[in-house]
Amino acid sequence: MLRTHTCGQLRKSDVGSPVTLCGWVENKRDHGGAVFIDLRDRYGLTQVVVGPPEASAELIDAAGHVPNESVVLIRGLVADRLEGKTNTKLATGEIEVRSEHFEILSAAQTPPFTPGQSDLPGEDLRLKYRYLDLRRKEMQQALIRRSQIIKCMRDYFAEHDFIDVETPILGRSTPEGARDYLVPSRVHPGHFYALPQSPQLYKQILMVAGFDRYVQVAKCFRDEDLRADRQPEFTQLDLEMSFIDADDIMALIDGLVARTAKQVLGKDIKLPLPRMTYAEAMRRFGSDAPDLRFGLEIVDVTPVAAKTEFRVFRGTADAGNFVRGIRVPGAATQYSRRQIDELTAYVQQDFGAKGLAWFRVEDDKTLWSPIAKNFEPEHLEEIRELLGGEPGDLLMFLADTWEVTCKGLSGLRKRLAVEMKLYSPGELNCSWVTEFPMFERDEESGRYVAMHHPFTAPLAEDLPYLVDSPEKCRAQAYDLVINGSEAGGGTIRIHDSKVQSQVFELLGMDEATAKDRFGFLLDALRFGAPPHGGIALGVDRWVMLFAGLENIREVIAFPKTQRAADLMTQAPGAVDADQLNELQLRTVSVKT
Amino acid sequence: MLRTHTCGQLRKSDVGSPVTLCGWVENKRDHGGAVFIDLRDRYGLTQVVVGPPEASAELIDAAGHVPNESVVLIRGLVADRLEGKTNTKLATGEIEVRSEHFEILSAAQTPPFTPGQSDLPGEDLRLKYRYLDLRRKEMQQALIRRSQIIKCMRDYFAEHDFIDVETPILGRSTPEGARDYLVPSRVHPGHFYALPQSPQLYKQILMVAGFDRYVQVAKCFRDEDLRADRQPEFTQLDLEMSFIDADDIMALIDGLVARTAKQVLGKDIKLPLPRMTYAEAMRRFGSDAPDLRFGLEIVDVTPVAAKTEFRVFRGTADAGNFVRGIRVPGAATQYSRRQIDELTAYVQQDFGAKGLAWFRVEDDKTLWSPIAKNFEPEHLEEIRELLGGEPGDLLMFLADTWEVTCKGLSGLRKRLAVEMKLYSPGELNCSWVTEFPMFERDEESGRYVAMHHPFTAPLAEDLPYLVDSPEKCRAQAYDLVINGSEAGGGTIRIHDSKVQSQVFELLGMDEATAKDRFGFLLDALRFGAPPHGGIALGVDRWVMLFAGLENIREVIAFPKTQRAADLMTQAPGAVDADQLNELQLRTVSVKT
Repeated sequence: MLRTHTCGQLRKSDVGSPVTLCGWVENKRDHGGAVFIDLRDRYGLTQVVVGPPEASAELIDAAGHVPNESVVLIRGLVADRLEGKTNTKLATGEIEVRSEHFEILSAAQTPPFTPGQSDLPGEDLRLKYRYLDLRRKEMQQALIRRSQIIKCMRDYFAEHDFIDVETPILGRSTPEGARDYLVPSRVHPGHFYALPQSPQLYKQILMVAGFDRYVQVAKCFRDEDLRADRQPEFTQLDLEMSFIDADDIMALIDGLVARTAKQVLGKDIKLPLPRMTYAEAMRRFGSDAPDLRFGLEIVDVTPVAAKTEFRVFRGTADAGNFVRGIRVPGAATQYSRRQIDELTAYVQQDFGAKGLAWFRVEDDKTLWSPIAKNFEPEHLEEIRELLGGEPGDLLMFLADTWEVTCKGLSGLRKRLAVEMKLYSPGELNCSWVTEFPMFERDEESGRYVAMHHPFTAPLAEDLPYLVDSPEKCRAQAYDLVINGSEAGGGTIRIHDSKVQSQVFELLGMDEATAKDRFGFLLDALRFGAPPHGGIALGVDRWVMLFAGLENIREVIAFPKTQRAADLMTQAPGAVDADQLNELQLRTVSVKT
Repeated sequence: MLRTHTCGQLRKSDVGSPVTLCGWVENKRDHGGAVFIDLRDRYGLTQVVVGPPEASAELIDAAGHVPNESVVLIRGLVADRLEGKTNTKLATGEIEVRSEHFEILSAAQTPPFTPGQSDLPGEDLRLKYRYLDLRRKEMQQALIRRSQIIKCMRDYFAEHDFIDVETPILGRSTPEGARDYLVPSRVHPGHFYALPQSPQLYKQILMVAGFDRYVQVAKCFRDEDLRADRQPEFTQLDLEMSFIDADDIMALIDGLVARTAKQVLGKDIKLPLPRMTYAEAMRRFGSDAPDLRFGLEIVDVTPVAAKTEFRVFRGTADAGNFVRGIRVPGAATQYSRRQIDELTAYVQQDFGAKGLAWFRVEDDKTLWSPIAKNFEPEHLEEIRELLGGEPGDLLMFLADTWEVTCKGLSGLRKRLAVEMKLYSPGELNCSWVTEFPMFERDEESGRYVAMHHPFTAPLAEDLPYLVDSPEKCRAQAYDLVINGSEAGGGTIRIHDSKVQSQVFELLGMDEATAKDRFGFLLDALRFGAPPHGGIALGVDRWVMLFAGLENIREVIAFPKTQRAADLMTQAPGAVDADQLNELQLRTVSVKT
């Protein structure tokens, strides 16, 4: 070891000891012939003094000229700081090291930015010089926290008898769902591997093989056009168990949530986590990942709307659509007409709503609104009562299809909660949503698509629906929701090859295709398959939520941009013609 | 949970308890109206009895007809086995479960083979039906051991303050060294990602970023023509540290070796592990990964050879080449002339040696050989003394270039040790080889290539050689050798951008190319880089060595064949034309 201690280690009890420290020059100050250096490493900051009598004039001069961010080694004695000079914000703030020897291990050129500076440059520059950005304390803490959370997960599952099994990265392309990343094979020209979107089939195969409990922190890949919180490669905590039901998986993950919250944040989480069916979540919150840190629950007033003279409400009800709204407590004074117009534009533009109807609850509990004159007073009162409106509240309504009222009101809930600060930033609200529909209709093709994936088992009681009304069929599915984000999702799987074939058929896959793509799974299910199920937790998302961060690129050491590029290494890059020849490939211009 | 206990859990103390078990029907026997089932899961085997009075005639009949490998659930009471019927080889051998309820969860069709059968089919069939092969106890144990070894590694490094950081799988292609797997980019047509051959540059960047201690169990990829013990994707335990030297890394890994041996095998390993320079290893064992479980050390007799009249020996010495040999104790009676001819053919065919000279040490310590007449007796005696030959020994010699004598004698050592059973199968011999040459000459181009990789630092004392005699330059490199296999390799890295540029130039890389491929590293080294180094351990190899297995495919859940194919999922496979269009790619026939 070049050093005897880290820069975060020395305390008053070390005074008098000879030490050697190594680190980066965060800062230096010249004070009457002595140079004070803040020496930094991952563990902390130590004040180093290069001055008389310990240091020679030459050494002091050298220290005075060392560029910031250089890496240096210093040897000296630990000393008390002068009276009044202790720094209580610093763990090492009671001491300093008086340098007798000072050596530059690596002189730094002036960097494009320094980790200490408060006005950081744009993200592109920070990504290009990732090694500088990663010197920032916030970035180091985020990645240390990530490491801790993953350790905590691994320990938890090891204690529960799970076996960590690595599944292949070079797999088979199955063009369902998202787009695969392909890897051309040199040995089998014209054939391709695909990077896994999840280890789904492998973990089911492990259950058929009798592994009973499988876990893996797995890299997964999707070649999708990236949203702000998506990356082309992402990490999931992936697990599968045999001889269990949905309750067992949820109870297991409950324990993990509580353990992680306690260990990482020191927070106690009350168990069991609340559970809610998909139907209830959509009804009360308009979302299958409801944010339960605040209220603003959705209320259906369609029956009243049907009775009113107001054309928009009544027409909606008559068409079999819905008038649903939320009560925003105390918002009447907070939101001006202009701000309400902005909310209207928001639900129109982002969710395709036709408009936003709203009422102010006056002191006498009557409802005021530009449209109020279209309503009989008793209908207004009915509406107020349904929502529990109190003086000063705003009541907001969408009159639209079920889907638009769900999406629009869910969006409105989230936006209002942020604007009105309805929850504290440190809050961690975890819950389950269960009994998702097995299928949804693809809007373009009109065909059924699997809401989770085609290996999901229906609820036993809904099995008969598979034949004639699949849309009624509910899945043995469960999503973990943290602060209104999906933080994990799982299902009990089909373990009967006949049911599996039936589902493939429902999804429009003919027998030959099913056999070609999933023949090995159908075979496996015929040779003795245990009932099994599992879940995948989004590790990047977990770290963001547990670290209280909002940019997914801050919990990943070397993330890609939204154009899927690594600005530091310049990946993806051009390759040699030889490399393509070996793969028997040509790049061409194809209009897609 | 569908079950109350696993099939490995019940003991005498459970007698009388009602239990529910789930598992696979390993075997069934009909004994006078009762059916005895061996019920199997990952945890063990339990005997289940379906018979009167607990079970109805109907149930007994059903149990009698359940196919082997079906998955069943049984409920019943734990009972003592009949006197004389306990099975001491089985953890559950004192009890049985008398079934009151018996339910087939998944009826098995007749499988192509069963995990219990002793005459296993060929590996291709086992790979195709991997879920059946993985039901075998040996396969489950190997993967459980793998999981334990990796857990042991992770815990060890967590205790030593390492941070687990995930580095990207989608990286940049750098066409040095082995062939990259490429991943076409859809967003940047004509550009490609490469799957990492190792996280080398990312971990160095993490050191420049101040992470101080990094560890990762990393998936790595090489598109090489596969040897028996290679896989296209493999796993390495990858780590890097700052402010350390080679000794620190070796001491750290010493601790890991001892911990793993103790925890996994219950073996005590004496530390520190022995260290030997590359020069010594080549001199004494002809290999940079010497197998130290046995002797058969190489002895150089060139000075004597130069004095003899034997044309082959003398000519070799005169040409500046080498005559080196090994003493094989007690082999004179064990090896017939025909067997020695086989050894001769082996060194000729596998290592390009011109021949094998040999002598038998007679009872009077004279050397007998068909070529002995070409030697003066005193030269034979000199040779015998140099090798320490005793009556009954065989002495074997190669007269050739340094390289051929090394490879040939190393091969001979290993073969003889196996044939003569010179070590016990359970032995674990670990050591270090250090001070590798920085460069070797590429035979084809005559150019220097890096022996480890181009980021390796030279020994400080050899730095001057970089300029005018690079072949003399030794690296700060260290390989961990277990039982004659390289089980890990690492180096101290260059942390000075000028030295790094100098090495790139030596390797024939012009400045523009170096900047294009490694510009970010050269930049990073200019902004304050700590001295750093690390190592990568081959996890698949470790598991093989610690589990005493010889086929790498038995320590990987879903391995690929030597043609890089997955026989179960049929990867790599054909893909849709749409997929290639989106990537702007065409497959073509190119002669390579």
